[in-house]
Amino acid sequence: MFYIVGLGLGDCKDITVKGLEIVKKCERVYLEAYTSILTCGTEALEEFYGRKLIVADRDLVEQGADEILDGAKDTDIALLVVGDPFGATTHTDLVLRAEEKGIKFQVIHNASILNAIGCCGLQLYSFGETVSIPYWMDGWQPNSFYDKIANNFKNKMHTLCLLDIKVKEPTLESLTKRKKEFMPPRFMSVSEAAQQLLLIIENRRKETCSSLDITEDNLAVGLARVGSDNQQIVACSLSKMKEVDLGGPLHSLIIPGPVLHPLEEEYLQKFKL
Amino acid sequence: MFYIVGLGLGDCKDITVKGLEIVKKCERVYLEAYTSILTCGTEALEEFYGRKLIVADRDLVEQGADEILDGAKDTDIALLVVGDPFGATTHTDLVLRAEEKGIKFQVIHNASILNAIGCCGLQLYSFGETVSIPYWMDGWQPNSFYDKIANNFKNKMHTLCLLDIKVKEPTLESLTKRKKEFMPPRFMSVSEAAQQLLLIIENRRKETCSSLDITEDNLAVGLARVGSDNQQIVACSLSKMKEVDLGGPLHSLIIPGPVLHPLEEEYLQKFKL
Repeated sequence: MFYIVGLGLGDCKDITVKGLEIVKKCERVYLEAYTSILTCGTEALEEFYGRKLIVADRDLVEQGADEILDGAKDTDIALLVVGDPFGATTHTDLVLRAEEKGIKFQVIHNASILNAIGCCGLQLYSFGETVSIPYWMDGWQPNSFYDKIANNFKNKMHTLCLLDIKVKEPTLESLTKRKKEFMPPRFMSVSEAAQQLLLIIENRRKETCSSLDITEDNLAVGLARVGSDNQQIVACSLSKMKEVDLGGPLHSLIIPGPVLHPLEEEYLQKFKL
Repeated sequence: MFYIVGLGLGDCKDITVKGLEIVKKCERVYLEAYTSILTCGTEALEEFYGRKLIVADRDLVEQGADEILDGAKDTDIALLVVGDPFGATTHTDLVLRAEEKGIKFQVIHNASILNAIGCCGLQLYSFGETVSIPYWMDGWQPNSFYDKIANNFKNKMHTLCLLDIKVKEPTLESLTKRKKEFMPPRFMSVSEAAQQLLLIIENRRKETCSSLDITEDNLAVGLARVGSDNQQIVACSLSKMKEVDLGGPLHSLIIPGPVLHPLEEEYLQKFKL
């Protein structure tokens, strides 16, 4: 059997009882470590589970399906995933590869950032399409996520912005070499995300004469380390968010819709700067 | 301390390790039993936790904040909630009432239907606003959810439809009596939901001359008991969905957007009728 087990968002103890039983009985347990990060380290997980984990990087998860699934017809293999198993496309793909090989699978769900952001008091049913804000690079500054946020806003919906994570990214220079060298890990902060959004708003204002839906005065909600003991939430204008420091990763940013429900309004007061 | 603990979607063992530790140490533990249902019963939960639970019905959760929170300043009180704690507005309200009383609170997240529906292979990031389909009654047949689905569809987004649950609803006759009498619990099936949608489509076609976005030939995905061992998923046209029987509750219905990603398409094949 092939198990994909969601670990939730916080620490070791956010695994479900069912998930823990599976981890303990499996022959090999992989820990997926690049689409997101857990706030505790691999060692803490190994100690809590009382067993060794195999850290699976991007190459292994995306191209090593054969290796991961090897033997799963006769023994139990698990892949541990931060959040919920179906948060990332690669895990859907792995399930399909397992089925091709005639391997049975089971999914153990858990909290993902998509539902846990409810902790800021904005109603989950009022969120539109989720967007990802990528790190800009020289000559590559995509801004299509802005249009999606603006579209949600027009439809009176909130937008959850997932912020970029760069883990085990090979350096440009090492791409042609035999031995890859990796850049230090980077996690986009709510401040960096706000900065990129403000730049887009500024550029759009120059380009068009019409007034924009979203401006620097718009409400934004910044969240850090959701689900962990030192979770932090801040609500302020987009321009103020540029100056906010919420500490270590992971961060998420929400651009609420133009009209808040009274209960949403009341709840957000707790986080106003 | 006041804890709100998410139980996830399946059985007893879907509680997190952290959540279970809290349940065991609390003085009083309430089980919220009307915004959703767990696939296992209260007795199974009590046996697994090794303790008594207090079943909290709608009246208690919505109007009995004082009773639930009584003593939470000095002792530990927990409210157990199916899915994730912030899935329903009433829980957000309870947290606010706790804060008013100077009571500290902690939220233990878990899987909710909003992320667990990823199990059908449709990408979670491509879902628009979530809608609720209510049971129609004589003279009360709201259809605004159709407009939201159509709007998501136009925006190339999928729509998750949460289907109505009627638990502990007083009978009309007993509303004026001292002692309330309750109707038997009802859970809307994917077939009933499809039926209501088809009726709305038929009526709209009569009213307008323009072609509709969503027709009876549209793809629909029906899900039952997501996260449990006997989970069932079916993908077929809306008109076929009307004839589908997915067994016991809870059911959810998805109306996918007009264009599927190749991986979504491939995954859904498994569930085609």
